[in-house]
Amino acid sequence: MEFVFLNGEIIERSKAKVDVEDRGYQFGDGVYEVIRIYNGKMFTLDEHLRRFVKSAESIGISIPFTSVQLSEMLKELLIKNNLETGNIYMQVTRGIAPRNHVFPTGNVVPTLVAYTIKGVRPLESLKSGVKAILTEDIRWLRCDIKSLNLLGNLLAKQKASEAGCFEAIQHRGNDVTEGSSSNIFIVKNGTVITHESNNLILKGITKDVILDLCLANNIPVEERTFSLTELNDAEEVFLSSTTSEVMPIIEVNGKKMGRGVPGPITRKLQGLFEREIEKQCGLLVDKLI
Amino acid sequence: MEFVFLNGEIIERSKAKVDVEDRGYQFGDGVYEVIRIYNGKMFTLDEHLRRFVKSAESIGISIPFTSVQLSEMLKELLIKNNLETGNIYMQVTRGIAPRNHVFPTGNVVPTLVAYTIKGVRPLESLKSGVKAILTEDIRWLRCDIKSLNLLGNLLAKQKASEAGCFEAIQHRGNDVTEGSSSNIFIVKNGTVITHESNNLILKGITKDVILDLCLANNIPVEERTFSLTELNDAEEVFLSSTTSEVMPIIEVNGKKMGRGVPGPITRKLQGLFEREIEKQCGLLVDKLI
Repeated sequence: MEFVFLNGEIIERSKAKVDVEDRGYQFGDGVYEVIRIYNGKMFTLDEHLRRFVKSAESIGISIPFTSVQLSEMLKELLIKNNLETGNIYMQVTRGIAPRNHVFPTGNVVPTLVAYTIKGVRPLESLKSGVKAILTEDIRWLRCDIKSLNLLGNLLAKQKASEAGCFEAIQHRGNDVTEGSSSNIFIVKNGTVITHESNNLILKGITKDVILDLCLANNIPVEERTFSLTELNDAEEVFLSSTTSEVMPIIEVNGKKMGRGVPGPITRKLQGLFEREIEKQCGLLVDKLI
Repeated sequence: MEFVFLNGEIIERSKAKVDVEDRGYQFGDGVYEVIRIYNGKMFTLDEHLRRFVKSAESIGISIPFTSVQLSEMLKELLIKNNLETGNIYMQVTRGIAPRNHVFPTGNVVPTLVAYTIKGVRPLESLKSGVKAILTEDIRWLRCDIKSLNLLGNLLAKQKASEAGCFEAIQHRGNDVTEGSSSNIFIVKNGTVITHESNNLILKGITKDVILDLCLANNIPVEERTFSLTELNDAEEVFLSSTTSEVMPIIEVNGKKMGRGVPGPITRKLQGLFEREIEKQCGLLVDKLI
């Protein structure tokens, strides 16, 4: 039996229901995190909890648990569900109130739900790389908030899926922003380039781990806006996300990127990333490199 | 006891709950309508149902009921809840599926919920007019879809509320778009001007009724983008929405609009709108004009 954490209690999955006037359901009025689990341990947990609190604060939601409490609850959930490899999904909404655009006042308690999802590392894709399409970024101007308003992201991802691709690389005019659920990196003259963390993209936790790994391993990095032309001419392209780790992109809109195979810097970062996982979560059974 | 329509059944309000993996709850993956009830009758019902279907189609959701079925169900709900004056809220989401940005395939049934909300006409505000603030429009580029991704709208409305105002007038740079839950009109040299219905605003049903009333009553109208300067210099300003009807705006960012009282064209349109309500729903007890 699977268990879910809902408003401070661990309950059976089948009982995890919310009221139709939960503001998450009517407005997408909430934020979320996805945390990767390796060997039953949460990777970059502190970073996820910090971002969760920050996203919530940025829309005026005060999470009714401390980070220490959240951390304890998630650990309990992992044990209860006996999860070794997979993800934790966690979201908080502003709570239940009569429908009104204005935030409710009084004793409205945010709704917090967390559950686990079994799943292995995407080793085949990590080895061979994936394909992507390009699509205009039509989303709002606060993509730095990890909110539940994800329709723009869904439409982009669906378009990619219908084109037989893994991801949609979004761009505002000529500027590449990010994937539908990932950050995008290019390699140019041996330098790793990725969009600066501003209001147009999510400050990815995997992205930040990669940037730290570059710095620690003398791989030159630039956090700046790059163009579609630079993407097109890149030596290597890859994306990063909690579930996709360091994922090579070998084709965009039907055109091979670089040599059409995962490049040397991408490979190197995959190895470094794997070692970072092992540092935090212990030795991996299924290794890529 | 209040009743709710959920997935083809009328159930008690307290039992109206949805699964935490309903895509409406995790992604705002759905669309909605609010329908005004006068004298127990639904105003502009056909227009709302048409827009509901169109919004759903635009994000690839196929509503599992025909418009005739929806209409019958809403009528049943009105009778069951004995609603004379108020609103019906109705939304449809893509349904329940394991969390994935890509649309689910197979037998996933959209979740449809509808319920009634008691409420009288805002006669005091309609008489005296309301205040508004200005705020940059940060929303996505498909505001023509009446979707559940409403966080940008909420943040704007909350800002207005905290400033002691009724509405936030949004603008993209120098161009006025719409309110957080309304369309915006100005009167300039006796001509009624409102943003053209494109991807940047919702094609308001009340807006369309007003435009028709203007045409039928020889009030000149222009549907075009107008600037903050034109707003500032307007003779009259008003907003329209299902619940606010034709609502005068007498102050924006602390500055009086026109003479700081509801203007003559606004008043005229309020009277015409009231007669349109009476044509569809019968004589009003609480009249404005």
